[in-house]
Amino acid sequence: MIIVNTGDGKGKTTAAIGQIIRSLGQGFKVCLIQLFKGENFYGEQNVLTKLDGLDFFSFSKEHPFCIKDVTMQEAAERCKPAISKIKEIVSSGKVYDLIVLEEFCIALRENFIDKTEFIKLVKLLSEKSDVIITGRGAPQELIDTADLVTEMKEIKHPYAKGVKSRKGIEF
Amino acid sequence: MIIVNTGDGKGKTTAAIGQIIRSLGQGFKVCLIQLFKGENFYGEQNVLTKLDGLDFFSFSKEHPFCIKDVTMQEAAERCKPAISKIKEIVSSGKVYDLIVLEEFCIALRENFIDKTEFIKLVKLLSEKSDVIITGRGAPQELIDTADLVTEMKEIKHPYAKGVKSRKGIEF
Repeated sequence: MIIVNTGDGKGKTTAAIGQIIRSLGQGFKVCLIQLFKGENFYGEQNVLTKLDGLDFFSFSKEHPFCIKDVTMQEAAERCKPAISKIKEIVSSGKVYDLIVLEEFCIALRENFIDKTEFIKLVKLLSEKSDVIITGRGAPQELIDTADLVTEMKEIKHPYAKGVKSRKGIEF
Repeated sequence: MIIVNTGDGKGKTTAAIGQIIRSLGQGFKVCLIQLFKGENFYGEQNVLTKLDGLDFFSFSKEHPFCIKDVTMQEAAERCKPAISKIKEIVSSGKVYDLIVLEEFCIALRENFIDKTEFIKLVKLLSEKSDVIITGRGAPQELIDTADLVTEMKEIKHPYAKGVKSRKGIEF
């Protein structure tokens, strides 16, 4: 099954993390491939790295929209090993029950990765695993390919009132 | 801050679990009060009960819409200790960074708990803690009270094609 968490609201990443916890709790094997997330910043990373049954990979850690000294070109270049990792999983025959591809919708939106190739790889992964792809602005082709799509829709957000990003909530 | 995860789509509970993991990863103290969820069924329970820093309470475990031998009246009765637990937290002076009230929107919708009393308690909790309330059909008064509201909106779901609930995904 191919699952997409998209939309402008909060909960895309946290829902994927919750899904990882649920899956691990059932004794399943899980792989998380994360883009654009600096280490030792997001609280969940401290817990996830300690859990049995999870293989955790992180690429292109500097987010080009948050960290000014990374160019879009550099960010794109740094996404390539993430695609190589997916290809490695496909060809290795290693079986995960769940594979989470975090923020890949952003990489697709910015053309950091090739959409056609990515969707083909996701289909291959989904033959053996459930696959969750997160990030705002999921392209229509990915939505068409997916079995389950949820839009996290912002109804109300304190950012609009000038409240800043907070530890334990946003990271 | 008062946060509400509502809507018909997938991700309300898993986003709250992800938020718990994020918060625990920052070294915070968290309390989870869960309604309508049988033990040894949901995968996340196996992981959450093993994590340091989390106090986990579960009430009215038999879901009246899923388990036929529980009446609505019995379910309502079994929600009372959950409200007592919230009152206990308010009056004890015990400080949590995050308190998650899982599926309380359902209890509100079914009038198992009193809306006015519940919202008053949530406001009191939010003086010391971030509070997340989950469940479909959040009442307008709760949305008005909340700071951050996300609607998990179903764009596409395989249930519509007759696919059944699956281990590691829905539980």
